[in-house]
Amino acid sequence: MNNLKHREGILFVVSAPSGAGKTSLCRELIDSSVDLRQSISFTTREKRGGERDGVDYYFIDTITFQQKIAAGEFAEWAEVHGHLYGTSLQILNAATAQGTDLLLDIDCQGAAQIKSNYQQGVFIFILPPDYAELEKRLRGRGTDDEIVIQHRLENSRQEISQAFWYDYLVVNDDIKSARDKIVAILTAERCRSHRTVYLLDKFTTKGEK
Amino acid sequence: MNNLKHREGILFVVSAPSGAGKTSLCRELIDSSVDLRQSISFTTREKRGGERDGVDYYFIDTITFQQKIAAGEFAEWAEVHGHLYGTSLQILNAATAQGTDLLLDIDCQGAAQIKSNYQQGVFIFILPPDYAELEKRLRGRGTDDEIVIQHRLENSRQEISQAFWYDYLVVNDDIKSARDKIVAILTAERCRSHRTVYLLDKFTTKGEK
Repeated sequence: MNNLKHREGILFVVSAPSGAGKTSLCRELIDSSVDLRQSISFTTREKRGGERDGVDYYFIDTITFQQKIAAGEFAEWAEVHGHLYGTSLQILNAATAQGTDLLLDIDCQGAAQIKSNYQQGVFIFILPPDYAELEKRLRGRGTDDEIVIQHRLENSRQEISQAFWYDYLVVNDDIKSARDKIVAILTAERCRSHRTVYLLDKFTTKGEK
Repeated sequence: MNNLKHREGILFVVSAPSGAGKTSLCRELIDSSVDLRQSISFTTREKRGGERDGVDYYFIDTITFQQKIAAGEFAEWAEVHGHLYGTSLQILNAATAQGTDLLLDIDCQGAAQIKSNYQQGVFIFILPPDYAELEKRLRGRGTDDEIVIQHRLENSRQEISQAFWYDYLVVNDDIKSARDKIVAILTAERCRSHRTVYLLDKFTTKGEK
């Protein structure tokens, strides 16, 4: 993209219910070299095996996280299963100012907060093919008991009930096909006239080269 | 596209100034089997060698054309170099109702008329890489005299001055790359939530299959 420097970076926000395959899909996207950088969240949860600070997350303690909330440093934050997660406003603003396109992998609550601050963001919701497949994927994860599974299904249904306000719906029936659709969305959004209107400047004056 | 029957067909309207390479690009698009049908215009001009009625244009006489105007049968029409050209409202409505995506290759005037009737249409403007290249392409066409060339350049600049209201701007610096961008726009627009919201129906009731 030669034109990246002429425009603001785009925030591509991707949400999905548990069982839609979002994590693998986001990894595919980042690996497919489409000039997209994954946004790194802050979290108070413990680092898991293999995770690296500043790569997977910025791992911080609860006090520091709360100070950042108080200082208005998050574009969005949420508590999930007792841990805090947040996206730095300063990182988003720096990326958009530099013309860097960011991928934000966040839930509907967080996405709605981003939407209220970044109207120009692009909001993509990943859907499983259907309810039966969603159930199959959630059950296929292991030997969780029925109550846990029913709870996850209900959560997924809750998330899907928010999908209507997203800009795009992409069904993940096949990971390559879903990835290609998202890559197409990136390409299309980069051509949108409100982002590329500077291209017209060359033609407004007579023949200067 | 298994889902075509669930949604209305999309009107993809493509405009470009003379010298932007629109005709070759539209042919590339139709040939690249992206589930897109070219809309066929009515015209009063003479059939040229190789052109077929009902394939390239519907060739009709001026009286018939004027009757169609009077009967409100055109979604857009215009007089260009003394000939009348028009797009049938009935053909557009039938295609959108059947879920067929149409490619309309029309000038800015016509595109603006379509826009006023079909807000949901997708409007794509093709740009030459820059003014120098535009001039080179227009001069390269043959041995036209300077006045004709200056007239074409002025017309092209006029068309480009309308590009700002289109949804997408695509630079045709390389025909394959420009085609790929338009294909990406088709794919993305087919994923837009206002067209795919029916996908959510499967998840609103509990687990029916």
